[in-house]
Amino acid sequence: MSANAKDELKTDTDITRIPSSRQHSSRFPYVHKVGKPPKQNLLTELMTSFKETFFSDDPLRPFKDQPKSRKFVLGLEALFPILGWSREYNLNKFKGDLIAGLTIASLCIPQDIAYAKLANLPPQNGLYTSFVPPLVYAFMGSSRDIAIGPVAVVSLLIGSMLQDEIDPKNAVAYRRLAFTTTFFAGIAQMMLGIFRLGFLIDFISHAAIVGFMGGAAITISLQQLKGLLGIKNFTKKTDIVSVMRSVINSAHHGWNWQTIAIGISFLAFLLISKYIGKRNRKLFWLPAIAPLFSVIASTLLVYLTHAQDHGVQVVNHIKKGINPSSVDEIYFTGEYVSHGFRIGVVAGMVALTEAIAIGRTFAAMKDYQLDGNKEMVALGTMNLVGSMTSCYVATGSFSRSAVNYMAGCRTAVSNIVMSIVVLLTLLLITPLFKYTPNAILASIIISAVVGLVDVEAAKLIWKIDKFDFIACMGAFFGVVFISVEIGLLIAVSVSFAKILLQVTRPRTAILGKLSRTSVYRNIQQYPDARQVPGILIVRVDSAIYFSNSNYIKERILRWLNEEEEKLKQSSQPKIRHLIVEMSPVTDIDTSGIHALEELFRSLLKRDIQLALANPGTIVIEKLHSSKFADLIGENMIFLSVADAIFTFAPKTTEEA
Amino acid sequence: MSANAKDELKTDTDITRIPSSRQHSSRFPYVHKVGKPPKQNLLTELMTSFKETFFSDDPLRPFKDQPKSRKFVLGLEALFPILGWSREYNLNKFKGDLIAGLTIASLCIPQDIAYAKLANLPPQNGLYTSFVPPLVYAFMGSSRDIAIGPVAVVSLLIGSMLQDEIDPKNAVAYRRLAFTTTFFAGIAQMMLGIFRLGFLIDFISHAAIVGFMGGAAITISLQQLKGLLGIKNFTKKTDIVSVMRSVINSAHHGWNWQTIAIGISFLAFLLISKYIGKRNRKLFWLPAIAPLFSVIASTLLVYLTHAQDHGVQVVNHIKKGINPSSVDEIYFTGEYVSHGFRIGVVAGMVALTEAIAIGRTFAAMKDYQLDGNKEMVALGTMNLVGSMTSCYVATGSFSRSAVNYMAGCRTAVSNIVMSIVVLLTLLLITPLFKYTPNAILASIIISAVVGLVDVEAAKLIWKIDKFDFIACMGAFFGVVFISVEIGLLIAVSVSFAKILLQVTRPRTAILGKLSRTSVYRNIQQYPDARQVPGILIVRVDSAIYFSNSNYIKERILRWLNEEEEKLKQSSQPKIRHLIVEMSPVTDIDTSGIHALEELFRSLLKRDIQLALANPGTIVIEKLHSSKFADLIGENMIFLSVADAIFTFAPKTTEEA
Repeated sequence: MSANAKDELKTDTDITRIPSSRQHSSRFPYVHKVGKPPKQNLLTELMTSFKETFFSDDPLRPFKDQPKSRKFVLGLEALFPILGWSREYNLNKFKGDLIAGLTIASLCIPQDIAYAKLANLPPQNGLYTSFVPPLVYAFMGSSRDIAIGPVAVVSLLIGSMLQDEIDPKNAVAYRRLAFTTTFFAGIAQMMLGIFRLGFLIDFISHAAIVGFMGGAAITISLQQLKGLLGIKNFTKKTDIVSVMRSVINSAHHGWNWQTIAIGISFLAFLLISKYIGKRNRKLFWLPAIAPLFSVIASTLLVYLTHAQDHGVQVVNHIKKGINPSSVDEIYFTGEYVSHGFRIGVVAGMVALTEAIAIGRTFAAMKDYQLDGNKEMVALGTMNLVGSMTSCYVATGSFSRSAVNYMAGCRTAVSNIVMSIVVLLTLLLITPLFKYTPNAILASIIISAVVGLVDVEAAKLIWKIDKFDFIACMGAFFGVVFISVEIGLLIAVSVSFAKILLQVTRPRTAILGKLSRTSVYRNIQQYPDARQVPGILIVRVDSAIYFSNSNYIKERILRWLNEEEEKLKQSSQPKIRHLIVEMSPVTDIDTSGIHALEELFRSLLKRDIQLALANPGTIVIEKLHSSKFADLIGENMIFLSVADAIFTFAPKTTEEA
Repeated sequence: MSANAKDELKTDTDITRIPSSRQHSSRFPYVHKVGKPPKQNLLTELMTSFKETFFSDDPLRPFKDQPKSRKFVLGLEALFPILGWSREYNLNKFKGDLIAGLTIASLCIPQDIAYAKLANLPPQNGLYTSFVPPLVYAFMGSSRDIAIGPVAVVSLLIGSMLQDEIDPKNAVAYRRLAFTTTFFAGIAQMMLGIFRLGFLIDFISHAAIVGFMGGAAITISLQQLKGLLGIKNFTKKTDIVSVMRSVINSAHHGWNWQTIAIGISFLAFLLISKYIGKRNRKLFWLPAIAPLFSVIASTLLVYLTHAQDHGVQVVNHIKKGINPSSVDEIYFTGEYVSHGFRIGVVAGMVALTEAIAIGRTFAAMKDYQLDGNKEMVALGTMNLVGSMTSCYVATGSFSRSAVNYMAGCRTAVSNIVMSIVVLLTLLLITPLFKYTPNAILASIIISAVVGLVDVEAAKLIWKIDKFDFIACMGAFFGVVFISVEIGLLIAVSVSFAKILLQVTRPRTAILGKLSRTSVYRNIQQYPDARQVPGILIVRVDSAIYFSNSNYIKERILRWLNEEEEKLKQSSQPKIRHLIVEMSPVTDIDTSGIHALEELFRSLLKRDIQLALANPGTIVIEKLHSSKFADLIGENMIFLSVADAIFTFAPKTTEEA
């Protein structure tokens, strides 16, 4: 604000420099001065920081010093990793992929049908989504373990956001909006990857995800009470209060005991098989195969007992045949475009977060690298293609990916195998699902999402970081008590608030000397550390920016006041030097420089000399270019606290 | 995300601990171990961080250990600082305040009339705003130098935002909305202060303010072309393109040469007197008195030449008498409440930013403390009272505050003096302004805001921080080419983006040993620093949070790869130890701990030992509570890099 005007006034309060007698006379032969790196030119500087932000993984490195034809091949391989790994593909690997592919196929088919219901879409759309997107991903993706398809949380999110815009009973318009949403989700994911903005998804914290997922799992399970209890008039809201009211109100007449019997008994079977699989890892195939078995068994049961005539709701009809084209169903004009765009971006981001988290987890386990931005392009393309082939938003499923991994998958070929099984299902056996009871789908969903409620992770978060825990619980209760979108919003906002708070209120510490060393440490962490008489050493633990520069200045003065009060009581020597340890100060901006200037002036009036210790590369450069180094005196900037102390109080240092 | 599932899989990739032969055998008698402060209980911990965030200035300190009656007096004094300083008030101080008050009164009267026009309000509302709010502030504020009243930027902001809602020709509704806006501005300011959220205004960076103010000054000046050229049909938009088009289109018939002659000649006079005042500080009263002189001279001129009959537009009529009550004009119901609320919050924040910046600047010059939150309560109350007495949003004016300071003000009594002069003006001499030409008001505005274009500050920002410069220019061009609101939005967004970017892409550095010391420093900053063979030392320059934990892990591995490549070429010993210098790592969250775990595992596979040096209080606590300290081995956490090096490569240390 009007530095001109400030300049005008400056002469009035002119700063008389410190008398030279009190200035440091540099008797001490410094071994090293504070380094001032050679000044980079502006372009290099900007390029470096641009590169570090957007190309920190150096994706073009393999292209360096290669002939043109090789560059083309490498480029093609970068876009389609299958061209790279397929050369080393062999029968042994295929054996692993085949078994894994068959296992996840048996798990995905009942899940697909169930999740499509969550999204208020016909069951075949769930199966479609397990056919085309996994194929596309197999060619373009670089994760070897992820299993692609529809997932519970994204299905719920899409279902609840879409029905706010169009009543699902208006099936055609609803379906068209779903494809539009998928289209924009794909576009958004691709764009993030192409413009190398992948780091944006890092802004949703682990803690927030744990809370959000847990809340979503509870919400999804509650929604299943409809199918499990055979309730006909069920609320459209997803919050726990509305759902429970709906359940209780329908208790007298709306529940169907046959449905309940089928649902509960198979749910028990599924949960027990899950428990067994967890206890004995060799039986991992049991929980993987259990859902398909349940579907077959319950379908047979209904068929034989004619339970559908006694109020047990069944799937009825799944359209036979492979994915029809849906290119002309996507809205490109009209009011629904903006709705589709908004929902697509939200669903696309959630899907991305899930897929990247899964990809990274398994990549770390098998120790291979995953390029986040390239993954986003692959996932985006897959959803883009999906939106044109009657699929809705697909992503990596955690439960199926874990089964895939445990069944011994080696490459993305397991996704191709799964995809082919789904294709055969679509072509041949969909009519057999006619008598599958809805209750069994509800049981499958509940047993699938129950693992997302991760109490252990929440406990660990509580132990490590209380603020993280607030984010986690905020997201959880937001989803459970209000809605999925609000929960998501809370998760993101709390994550941001945490970053901002940390930047506004950085820590500062008083340092003391550890005996028999020249090491200065926080006196609260090291109660042995002794302060040097007449000198106050304050460490600032953050870059000094506009958002905290005032606070830091005032906090340092407050430390000084507190120390002086203590000294007064014990009648020790007055403080004459204030050393600011700058090691953790990684950057400073114009506001930060102003704050230092104000600090310097305030101290001068109290007859206290300000000194800086160990400013980093960027900071020292800015201290010089802003002339602050001249104001404070270049000899007041030291290599280390120890050097500064040696200058101000040589005796103390020699004791050591 | 489903840590359960991760746990399930962990056994497969089980981590075999480092063979004990390679573990550090602690031959070296450490003087100090890494401090682990006594565990605070949760409540204390939360209270401390709450206190540091909201009560960092310890406002209740004077109340400690005081009897009840004294506490009451102190509380009253805290609310009304005048009770405190008036006890030490004397004739000498009054002399200073009287002269300063008269000077700023002569400056404020013409400015008030002119700024009211900017806000599309009748001239008397400008004068009202210089009467009540300064009085309230004098009792409640703690700045001694600020001059309260309407200011150019806030007037423009209100004018442009209000006319989007109501046509100013609909005078009554427009005025009512203006009071509603003022009411909510006051409420917002008060609330920020009461809930101790004052730190929020620190989020608008200095650079963004410089750009925004400069842009607003240009926009305001362009708006004055209407009055200066006597144009009748003028655009309502504020962007430079619309305004220039309006000016050029009216060139043939719409300009009035008499108006231009008066406007330009007095503008020249005002600018010259300003220039003289700047060159010779003793003549500071010249630019302060020039506007009032111009008004008197030009009014006389018009009166004598009957210029109003030749197309020179004049003020015509200013209502006589003091502020009428406007309590019943504020909208408390209906659609305008939400508009008033929104505009009020925006205008209130901008007004607050300006007032606090001014208050801080002058407080630093005279070396007294200013409690930001208390100031906000004072400013909020003053606008609240103002909204009920026909005033619009008042704040601290930079130009008048500077004049106040230079004229030798000692306390807020100068505001009372100014307020009384304005009262007398309202009661006695408003009819005399009848023949004041509008052109002179335009000249006064231009000469007042021209100082807000602060090229020197922008240059300094460019020199110190390129990113700040982008924020500055973004805000500037946003205001000039689009609108005031968009400029403000750009200013705030770029400021936020900067913080977020810094948190996402923190710096890391390779450290080397400075010869003949045990100091390890960035080898880029200190080209003399030598790396230790077989050991890589990486310093992480930021708290490790979810937003950067992946980046940090990957960046460290990239440093390692780059080093290993270099070593391969020069066939030097392989890297066996990687030391992460944690001094600047002020905090870590669950994601950060995960990243460290992943780093540890990746390194283990490459047969490289991870060690940490000097983790801070909070970090060491979290390393223990998350069991990471056990995973890595407690003896792999060192007090300093030097200690770690001594353990891994004792020879190197002994050389020194």
